[in-house]
Amino acid sequence: MRIQMADGGDASALIATRILGLDPGLRITGFGLIDMQGNRLRYVASGCIRGADGAASALPIRLKTLFDGVREVIDRYHPDLAAVEKVFVSVNPQSTLLLGQARGAVICGAVSSDLPVSEYTALQVKQAVVGHGKAAKEQVQHMVMRLLDLPAAPQADAADALACAICHAHGSTGLGALAGSGHGRRGGRMLMR
Amino acid sequence: MRIQMADGGDASALIATRILGLDPGLRITGFGLIDMQGNRLRYVASGCIRGADGAASALPIRLKTLFDGVREVIDRYHPDLAAVEKVFVSVNPQSTLLLGQARGAVICGAVSSDLPVSEYTALQVKQAVVGHGKAAKEQVQHMVMRLLDLPAAPQADAADALACAICHAHGSTGLGALAGSGHGRRGGRMLMR
Repeated sequence: MRIQMADGGDASALIATRILGLDPGLRITGFGLIDMQGNRLRYVASGCIRGADGAASALPIRLKTLFDGVREVIDRYHPDLAAVEKVFVSVNPQSTLLLGQARGAVICGAVSSDLPVSEYTALQVKQAVVGHGKAAKEQVQHMVMRLLDLPAAPQADAADALACAICHAHGSTGLGALAGSGHGRRGGRMLMR
Repeated sequence: MRIQMADGGDASALIATRILGLDPGLRITGFGLIDMQGNRLRYVASGCIRGADGAASALPIRLKTLFDGVREVIDRYHPDLAAVEKVFVSVNPQSTLLLGQARGAVICGAVSSDLPVSEYTALQVKQAVVGHGKAAKEQVQHMVMRLLDLPAAPQADAADALACAICHAHGSTGLGALAGSGHGRRGGRMLMR
């Protein structure tokens, strides 16, 4: 729990929970932060952590980039908890192993900062933001844009991370499906109903 | 590089490299430390990091236990570098994913302490300590005991970790296969020849 002070927020000291969504990948890890205050969600920041040295670097270096990147995001935005998307098991065992290692590094970035970590499957995330589990990436991006009242759709990995954060908020507030049942604005803020 | 000061070592300030070997697993991660000084190897410590809460705990908690355990070993023994065994890709994709995540956590424990990390396949490790890649676990344990002049065989995961450290030392010194070509002692210390 923290005092909501970010730009565009309420000036009064309203208690909000800041959720860090993470979509782990060895090449690109998406992150997205939202503030949840009651049943209101507010966009804070989002982006991608990229392995600076590309795929040519040794695995430990790439894992360090991910770990350090997550720590940097946490140090900068001080989330209260993290929601991490469960990764798909690939048909290629080597890819699955690589993805697992990336996910281990990303989760360690969060738990080493003493953040509680919740996990959500892609199905849960899609159901929370789009209303069904078979949604395409573009639909997720579109709904994240609408739900968080953004001027444009976020980059795909950042959108997945924001969607994961929204999924956690959804579970926390017990609001039921955010999308599908409609959503709207009241008093200039996004309201889930 | 560090000054060799551990118990049983030379009283004179001899420069040694301390290698941390790691054998990652989600349930048990073996660790083993050896000092390499020229072509001499000396046992420092070994053991296992176990998920304190067992398999029932949530994955992020288990990864934190691994990460913290590796950091604790590093803080205690101050190795100069780490050598990590490459894990087998299982036929079960879910097991591969879990193992990958454990490996990611273990490597992050090392790289977050700014240790350089080298990786070795089980084949390389077995070849280095037993002389061929098809060695059984018991053979690895036996050869680690002999090569490091231990009074008894270490526990299997600790032995694998020590074997990985020996494999790194072997590559660093360019000694060729440690086992198979024989090994012996001179002046009360293990000497690889």
